[in-house]
Amino acid sequence: MIAVDWGTSSFRAYRLDRDGAVLEQRSAAAGLLACQGNFEAALAQRLSGWDDATVVMAGMIGSRNGWHEVPYVDCPAGAEQIAAGMLEVAAAAFTGRRLFIAPGVRYRPVIGTPEVMRGEEVQLLGLAPRLAPGEPHTLCLPGTHSKWAVLDDGRLTSFRTAMTGELYALLTRHSLLATSMDPHAGDDAAAFARGLATARSDGGLPSHLFSVRTLALFGELTPAQAPSYLSGLLVGHELEGLAPSAGRVHLIGNVELTRRYERALRARGLEPVGHSDTLSASGLHQLARHRRLID
Amino acid sequence: MIAVDWGTSSFRAYRLDRDGAVLEQRSAAAGLLACQGNFEAALAQRLSGWDDATVVMAGMIGSRNGWHEVPYVDCPAGAEQIAAGMLEVAAAAFTGRRLFIAPGVRYRPVIGTPEVMRGEEVQLLGLAPRLAPGEPHTLCLPGTHSKWAVLDDGRLTSFRTAMTGELYALLTRHSLLATSMDPHAGDDAAAFARGLATARSDGGLPSHLFSVRTLALFGELTPAQAPSYLSGLLVGHELEGLAPSAGRVHLIGNVELTRRYERALRARGLEPVGHSDTLSASGLHQLARHRRLID
Repeated sequence: MIAVDWGTSSFRAYRLDRDGAVLEQRSAAAGLLACQGNFEAALAQRLSGWDDATVVMAGMIGSRNGWHEVPYVDCPAGAEQIAAGMLEVAAAAFTGRRLFIAPGVRYRPVIGTPEVMRGEEVQLLGLAPRLAPGEPHTLCLPGTHSKWAVLDDGRLTSFRTAMTGELYALLTRHSLLATSMDPHAGDDAAAFARGLATARSDGGLPSHLFSVRTLALFGELTPAQAPSYLSGLLVGHELEGLAPSAGRVHLIGNVELTRRYERALRARGLEPVGHSDTLSASGLHQLARHRRLID
Repeated sequence: MIAVDWGTSSFRAYRLDRDGAVLEQRSAAAGLLACQGNFEAALAQRLSGWDDATVVMAGMIGSRNGWHEVPYVDCPAGAEQIAAGMLEVAAAAFTGRRLFIAPGVRYRPVIGTPEVMRGEEVQLLGLAPRLAPGEPHTLCLPGTHSKWAVLDDGRLTSFRTAMTGELYALLTRHSLLATSMDPHAGDDAAAFARGLATARSDGGLPSHLFSVRTLALFGELTPAQAPSYLSGLLVGHELEGLAPSAGRVHLIGNVELTRRYERALRARGLEPVGHSDTLSASGLHQLARHRRLID
């Protein structure tokens, strides 16, 4: 089978054997937005030469702006519920083969605002078999829109989103703070830690952000340090709002981001456990099995 | 004398009588940025026909990117300290007259990051004579960078900044949330109150912001309501971080913004007292008196 993780700005495809092991993979930095609505042609081109009978996709490709909108499945949701919500797609370019798009997951807390994810759920499912049964596990997927989720016996029971990465991009590109920052600066661990500490002080995020400006004004933060400090402020506020008070947190993401979150979690006395961000192939393989598309 | 409040994007000038009463006023929506460094010519043009011997200016005109950088005066700072820090400027177009630029104010807390203001201090001074002596007063100036200050016996003893207005502008213009919003929508009191309530729930600002998206997705927030809801989220977080737990808060600002903050303060059990935002003339008049530029 072929597993596809198709997001707004990225595309990843995996060719899997019967047991779900990755035989080949392809990726593109161009996601939905780059297709201009021509999803079938884009998929045929990107999978050309791979003739497997079953293609299972997840991500924003199943959203209102994607190929076909697939209704959300509600929490608690495991592989069984998500597989049952998959939608089969007809495509002339794939005659004789079967294409499916997985649904996203919705969480409606009794108190508070609703939450949604599309794509992260297959990464979570991919990790689930490695987690001990009978107890809840906290997982964090850092990113443009970071996700914090609880998995219990393979089922996603609740989750929250933080717009941390998007805030970072907005502030470094378009705000007054941009004038204090070197956008090409690398990671500065001390400046990041200082941002984390400020995030734990009183005042709140709208107030803490102004400290990027004032510290720069008084020469206490160089343009090379300012991006890491800002990142520390934002990640610190994300953790302040969403991290548990103690215990283990499973991190799924790219190495650079995961390393920062590991430091931030340790600074709060939490125990980070890092995982690679290529778990979606395994999650999509589970969905295909539950839907009996493969043996 | 002539009092001038000259900021990054706005200009206001007042012609005052001996007692500080405003005789005439002029304003322009063009501030420092519109002058392209030619401050003397811009001032001469904007004050043409006003021949008063003394011109006192405040605001970003005294910053590094202004006409002359005037060093900050440290808290605690009253009219006496700020007047002493004023810098006289030589200008051929104003021969025979005297021009001064007021310093900004800096606050260095024992714990935490430094704070600065330029321009707001003359508004605060303008209000000071109306406040009872012998007790501290809390003042809030909502805006792009909101200021929260404590005045005690006419002296500014501490203050904090929140980038609330700038965050609102960034998020409505450049973020994913922009797709859920009608940028021309008017004030919606119920949506604003709902944003305030969300701000008081757990999760933190980076997480609460995503609720603009999800509530819109499920039809629980219309594009016309979304800007007010976002404003409620951001103002709510500003107050969560900087508002006192009880008592009176003096608000200085334009009517529309002040009304929103009044509602937000009342929702927290605080007692707002509204003031107009044309207090800078009175503050600049006090500075001229303390410097003995007028009788």
